[in-house]
Amino acid sequence: TRTHRIAVIPGDGIGVETVPEGIKALDAVAANHDFELEYTEYDFASANYWLKHGKMLPDNWFDELKGYDAIFFGAVGAPDVVPDHVSLWGSLLKFRRGFDQYANVRPVRLLPGIKSPLAGRLPGDIDFYVVRENTEGEYSSVGGIMFPETDREIVMQETVMTRTGVDRILKYAFELAESRERKHLTSATKSNGISISMPYWDERVKEMSAKYPDISVDKFHIDILTANFVLHPDWFDVVVASNLFGDILSDLGPACTGTIGVAPSGNINPERIYPSLFEPVHGSAPDIVGKGIANPVGQIWSASMMLNHLGEHAAGAAILEGIERVLTRGGDALTPDLGGSGTTISLGAEIATEISVAT
Amino acid sequence: TRTHRIAVIPGDGIGVETVPEGIKALDAVAANHDFELEYTEYDFASANYWLKHGKMLPDNWFDELKGYDAIFFGAVGAPDVVPDHVSLWGSLLKFRRGFDQYANVRPVRLLPGIKSPLAGRLPGDIDFYVVRENTEGEYSSVGGIMFPETDREIVMQETVMTRTGVDRILKYAFELAESRERKHLTSATKSNGISISMPYWDERVKEMSAKYPDISVDKFHIDILTANFVLHPDWFDVVVASNLFGDILSDLGPACTGTIGVAPSGNINPERIYPSLFEPVHGSAPDIVGKGIANPVGQIWSASMMLNHLGEHAAGAAILEGIERVLTRGGDALTPDLGGSGTTISLGAEIATEISVAT
Ligand SMILES: CC(C)[C@H](C(=O)O)[C@@H](O)C(=O)O
Ligand SMILES: CC(C)[C@H](C(=O)O)[C@@H](O)C(=O)O
Repeated sequence: TRTHRIAVIPGDGIGVETVPEGIKALDAVAANHDFELEYTEYDFASANYWLKHGKMLPDNWFDELKGYDAIFFGAVGAPDVVPDHVSLWGSLLKFRRGFDQYANVRPVRLLPGIKSPLAGRLPGDIDFYVVRENTEGEYSSVGGIMFPETDREIVMQETVMTRTGVDRILKYAFELAESRERKHLTSATKSNGISISMPYWDERVKEMSAKYPDISVDKFHIDILTANFVLHPDWFDVVVASNLFGDILSDLGPACTGTIGVAPSGNINPERIYPSLFEPVHGSAPDIVGKGIANPVGQIWSASMMLNHLGEHAAGAAILEGIERVLTRGGDALTPDLGGSGTTISLGAEIATEISVAT
Repeated sequence: TRTHRIAVIPGDGIGVETVPEGIKALDAVAANHDFELEYTEYDFASANYWLKHGKMLPDNWFDELKGYDAIFFGAVGAPDVVPDHVSLWGSLLKFRRGFDQYANVRPVRLLPGIKSPLAGRLPGDIDFYVVRENTEGEYSSVGGIMFPETDREIVMQETVMTRTGVDRILKYAFELAESRERKHLTSATKSNGISISMPYWDERVKEMSAKYPDISVDKFHIDILTANFVLHPDWFDVVVASNLFGDILSDLGPACTGTIGVAPSGNINPERIYPSLFEPVHGSAPDIVGKGIANPVGQIWSASMMLNHLGEHAAGAAILEGIERVLTRGGDALTPDLGGSGTTISLGAEIATEISVAT
């Protein structure tokens, strides 16, 4: 049997509550498939670690983690303890860059049993991917402040795009579009307002399109694109975007499908030189920590994405089917955000049972 | 009687079709109020002007326009003739900066007779303003390309915020919140990812809040904020945002109220040293030019905002009431985007008549 070695990082807040439910699902599915999972849990990338050590990660984090087949991540962020940009840049954003996880991939899908806030939309109407550049662009930390703390204060922050960085995310997105039925790709831009980096992005999209003649390509400025997520979510198949635009679209998309607490994400190193990281789209949700009501589905769906990435496609599909069956059944088993009265643990158990029974 | 001198710039595409309908409404309301409007129309800021002169504006545009009481603008953009970033930076964005129109103000309101794409929302549920910084931030043209046209290409573009620029837009937004019943202000940020300029924005918001103790303030990162526009549009009263974030939110907001073709905007110089500019939120819409079906309501509502800015509050209100009555009546008079079979001209005439009859 194959063995996959997984680094488990629960992190902060509800991450600590949802990660065990992800593991339950993984164990349930592994029991019926021909592979084993070996977990190693880490306490860093958390406010607790910060309080003890004054930093988010040990100095040797890179060497410690680089040999794993994947990282299974909860959430990070405890703004009362550490400012968000410190905790995030000190952990999650370090992993994304350090392990060159340049493709952030998030499905936007209206699931059975979940009500979209958009009037009249049904499962099947909305089914696309947001592919986000995950290492450069607007998330540089290059810049600074001139005349600090005076009335003349000027604050500058650089957006940095490289040909390497732009081309590889476009290639990833085009390949994904190629694998899908509709073969349609939408590029998010803002070249009418952001006058240097975004016209450059458009140019690279145009050049890349020429290599994929069977893919239909369009582009929208980010302002009207967000509007079209609400007005015409059925237009999209694969949406490719810069780091910031992708961040926005991959929260807005799940909101439009009513799945903000349910949506998964993969931070992918497509070359598999380094481990990829899988985490729910939602954050650490300090407001509901400790209440036991956090929705575990985003974490469990992330486990499914992780298995697909590890080549365990049957097992990945089995987890997603388990989720879908439990959601379709609906009722009290669901957590309060989905209208039920279940807990993180009871819903997690329900899904794990469903997976065990079915396979 | 008071006279207001208005520069009229129809621009490109459907701007040429909707501007006359705005003027009809202005004339209708002026006839019944104690003021006169004097219009001067200009053909620049258009693709036609570009084709004749190789530039978007005459060299003396600033001196030519600076003495007007306001600018009534249609739309600009004809990407088949001039690249968007050239036409926009050569006209509209020049006005915003040259006339220091640093507050871009856009109402987001669910109007009677208009169906929101959000399930179950009714007029009254959604009624807020987006206040957008309109001169600096992410829309700098500072930056450049290193190693151009090689594999090592690096593209950099600077976001520039100044204390002056940030503080004055915050002050404008806080004052607007002060004038409203709910006295609630939401700040759009992304300080967890954009590590220099956005934490600075947060700091300035915090400092400004201290001066307005009766206003309740919250903040959201832009990703979850766009999600909340869809999930909880009733949460918002005044939303203040940087140039780019405000651009996004002020398209998404109108989309959530079904009014993307209907929404107005003011580009305001609050000190009234220079003319302010009023334009619909929609663009030049090359796809429907010449068909006579462009919705004129965004332009007419912009006329109402312009009158309010000129101190003609009764007249401004009369235009908006005329719009609301015609929309409430609904039916065939409306343009196709609102489900009717009317034309730009017939709907414009209907609203003008409504205004004349009522006042
Ligand atoms: C046309 C474009 C440059 C402009 C902007 O982004 O400011 C438009 O979207 C707007 O919102 O007025
Ligand atoms: C927490 C934050 C830094 C992060 C991001 O903006 O990338 C999050 O919003 C995400 O989408 O993973």
